[in-house]
Amino acid sequence: MNLKDKIAEYPNFPKKGILFRDFSPILKDPSALSEIADEFSKYFHTKDIDVFAGIESRGFILACILASRYNKGMMMIRKAGKLPGKTIKLAYTVEYGKDTIEIQKDIIEKEQRVLICDDLLATGGTAKASAKLIEKVGGKIAGFAFIIELTELNGIKGISKYNCKSLVKY
Amino acid sequence: MNLKDKIAEYPNFPKKGILFRDFSPILKDPSALSEIADEFSKYFHTKDIDVFAGIESRGFILACILASRYNKGMMMIRKAGKLPGKTIKLAYTVEYGKDTIEIQKDIIEKEQRVLICDDLLATGGTAKASAKLIEKVGGKIAGFAFIIELTELNGIKGISKYNCKSLVKY
Repeated sequence: MNLKDKIAEYPNFPKKGILFRDFSPILKDPSALSEIADEFSKYFHTKDIDVFAGIESRGFILACILASRYNKGMMMIRKAGKLPGKTIKLAYTVEYGKDTIEIQKDIIEKEQRVLICDDLLATGGTAKASAKLIEKVGGKIAGFAFIIELTELNGIKGISKYNCKSLVKY
Repeated sequence: MNLKDKIAEYPNFPKKGILFRDFSPILKDPSALSEIADEFSKYFHTKDIDVFAGIESRGFILACILASRYNKGMMMIRKAGKLPGKTIKLAYTVEYGKDTIEIQKDIIEKEQRVLICDDLLATGGTAKASAKLIEKVGGKIAGFAFIIELTELNGIKGISKYNCKSLVKY
């Protein structure tokens, strides 16, 4: 199966000039979902991962698909203000200002190896901030898994010291 | 395993007077995740379901866990403005105003049976609106799956004509 054929394209969404790549048709198709897990399992080994972290909100989907396949747990990397309890936040620069992500402080045990998941790698700002945040609480980065990578934005640059895998490149 | 022991409680989050029930400890634990899938699979049968729909954003998590277990696809029920292409929206009343949810118009084929998933059933407004929206595009509701149900809010009332299952009741 060519996963690229299952990614829909919508010009000018969410705003003018952006070509939105939508993985909804992959999600709807059990064999495509299964292929995603197959592909990543060629690259990331179960013995190297303790937990899958999903970046809100489409990253939750990939993290859960992989957590199910690898029989591991998952955790959420959320936008600020949505997680209860003791948390830790990190602000980072985006195109027109700042965004802040947040995790629960006690969610990761020391030295736990976290595989960070998102649907799409664009400029990589959120991905890089996610790694920093997890390292701040004592976690280790097992790698990054993306379904789609927009190579011209070169988001890989900020996380190139980690083990990164994307399935469909544009 | 008692799943209730794995739900953390945070008083006054996200605002004063609310006791937040957090399923993060369940997600982190592979055996708890697996137990969730086991429990639902006693209740919902694979032959009765075509696709799992997750309500943004924690509902995505349960939908993916079940889609993986049942070897089915999943789809997203999102807050308005986040899905590309032709969509259909539904506004519904919440405590202090209105919320709007949205799905892609062509995501469900006629008569497809959709199991709607969310982490928590409270007043049931979003759940009821989700069912209406799916029925509007020709889908059928296979049922509702919730990890947590706050019984005193009686959200079950609005969706009682459907097959509903929650794992932990308060």
